[in-house]
Amino acid sequence: MTAARKYLVFGGGAVGSVFAWRLQQGGAKVSVVCRSNFRAVRDNGFNIDSVKYGAGKFTPDNVYQSASDVVKDKQDYDYILVSTKSLPNIVNPAELVAPCVRDKKTVLVLMQNGIGIEQYFEEKFPENPIIPATVFLDAHQTEHGSITHGVSIKLDYGIYKPQQLGVQKTESILEQLKQDLVAGDVESSILDNVQRSRWSKVIWNASFGPISVLAGKYNASELLGDPIANQLVRTTMKELIAIGDTTTGEKVSPISSEDFIDKMIDFTQNRPNPFIPSMLVDFENKRPMEHHVIVKNPIDVANKLGVKVPVLETLYSLLVLLEKKSLGSGNKQ
Amino acid sequence: MTAARKYLVFGGGAVGSVFAWRLQQGGAKVSVVCRSNFRAVRDNGFNIDSVKYGAGKFTPDNVYQSASDVVKDKQDYDYILVSTKSLPNIVNPAELVAPCVRDKKTVLVLMQNGIGIEQYFEEKFPENPIIPATVFLDAHQTEHGSITHGVSIKLDYGIYKPQQLGVQKTESILEQLKQDLVAGDVESSILDNVQRSRWSKVIWNASFGPISVLAGKYNASELLGDPIANQLVRTTMKELIAIGDTTTGEKVSPISSEDFIDKMIDFTQNRPNPFIPSMLVDFENKRPMEHHVIVKNPIDVANKLGVKVPVLETLYSLLVLLEKKSLGSGNKQ
Repeated sequence: MTAARKYLVFGGGAVGSVFAWRLQQGGAKVSVVCRSNFRAVRDNGFNIDSVKYGAGKFTPDNVYQSASDVVKDKQDYDYILVSTKSLPNIVNPAELVAPCVRDKKTVLVLMQNGIGIEQYFEEKFPENPIIPATVFLDAHQTEHGSITHGVSIKLDYGIYKPQQLGVQKTESILEQLKQDLVAGDVESSILDNVQRSRWSKVIWNASFGPISVLAGKYNASELLGDPIANQLVRTTMKELIAIGDTTTGEKVSPISSEDFIDKMIDFTQNRPNPFIPSMLVDFENKRPMEHHVIVKNPIDVANKLGVKVPVLETLYSLLVLLEKKSLGSGNKQ
Repeated sequence: MTAARKYLVFGGGAVGSVFAWRLQQGGAKVSVVCRSNFRAVRDNGFNIDSVKYGAGKFTPDNVYQSASDVVKDKQDYDYILVSTKSLPNIVNPAELVAPCVRDKKTVLVLMQNGIGIEQYFEEKFPENPIIPATVFLDAHQTEHGSITHGVSIKLDYGIYKPQQLGVQKTESILEQLKQDLVAGDVESSILDNVQRSRWSKVIWNASFGPISVLAGKYNASELLGDPIANQLVRTTMKELIAIGDTTTGEKVSPISSEDFIDKMIDFTQNRPNPFIPSMLVDFENKRPMEHHVIVKNPIDVANKLGVKVPVLETLYSLLVLLEKKSLGSGNKQ
């Protein structure tokens, strides 16, 4: 029997803590870097109330306040799961994590929203395996260290540069992660084209997010219940699908874009509780929004490919301006 | 010598009161329909502090609170100057004025913002002369009945349907109005293609207005000082120029659209005080915005002509949604 693998979960919010908990439950060694909730988690761990798994107490093997605390501890991690917000307009996400990356063997699993999140890590760690993942999880941190989770949890992922490590090494990295997730009762799929899956998610985030904020704080159900907003969501999704189809080299969805949009909208409308897009949550809490990776990076891809996205560009411009007024700051864009 | 012509100015805000004052100064009989400021004006008239004309007291020949008060008074007016906001999504602007229109000779001078403002009057008064006008005026009502005015004042106008009345009758209607304005020291031009002039103005209003509101309350100078907002203003103007060029049958401006946009932006930037778009003033005061005539009607024209205006459509949708949240009402769109 091999020694338990060692995970560092960088970002102890709802996403990071639930996955960290499950990995530990499955037998892995799991440490967590917490920021705003550091004191609460160091003193009491995480209290997780999950419909799927029941109530649980999660005490990470180590709780760190920052990357430099990780370095001081001289631990070595096989996988780093990056579950912080991705705000490259404010700070390079790879620089944040950098001190924790001991050598080129450390696997970086990117559990962040948006498109083009890999570029920051690729530049900083050209030789490390990078695994972009798509997170499906309905969990929230209700107060520092207290997490509620519904029933949905899934991690889809794939290797960023398949050619880099060779087939065997790549497969082993992907399979080991899957073993550990499955041991923790987490569903997961290894995907050949993980970007398709990431685009599917960004199509939702980049349409509902900006519109919910700019329209004056509508949740997703309110937006869909208003014919003007419903139409604007669909128009925005259509632009995003056009980019996604072009850039991923195969259609983001095998069904027609109209059917795909209908399906996404039905899924959103049929939730027992209305979705509140994470951008709206951040905006309401006067926190920076992830408009760079969710909206700007898709626009940059569109411009490179010659896909016209005037609606998305309008939403992005307004969002940046609104955030500047709201936060009163001169963030880099 | 003929008897003084009789004017009814429908809407005693800054625009209506300054023009009414000048017409009376020129020798015309001028009555005003006031709404929110009725009591103040009935009791004390208007106090107008003008850089161009000096300080003046303006006591209208009659002050009315509503159209039905005008009817009760059994007065007959040669010209009705309509200077209320145009909010066809809330109330038909022609219905508001209708009781004051005694017969088909009454000339309707439309001094309102936006595009397509004539359609409501044309439908209600198919035989009356309709004169769309473009107002240039820097005046504000600082409190009920108190008006400040700078130096700029100009009224450009033309007949809506040149064929309707015959050349002679049309000319006499236009010339009489000009005589009365000139007598009051107001510059004015009679235009063959008044729609070009109205489009020039809507290009400004439909770009700066919505963006200033949606971006989170930027005045025009702040918008131009931010490169992202500056670009969005230009993109929106470009769409509007494309509609205007197509619908007016000749280019809105004889210079290139890039030069025209530069000129508008220079003019806006070189003001001693920053422009605050009227839409932003309305939004901040929780009053309905004129998005229907300023944004929606241009979009409808574009759709009819097959001109693509995705940016304008996005701005309009967001504006309507934001207003709904802000006013908490279910206005008709």
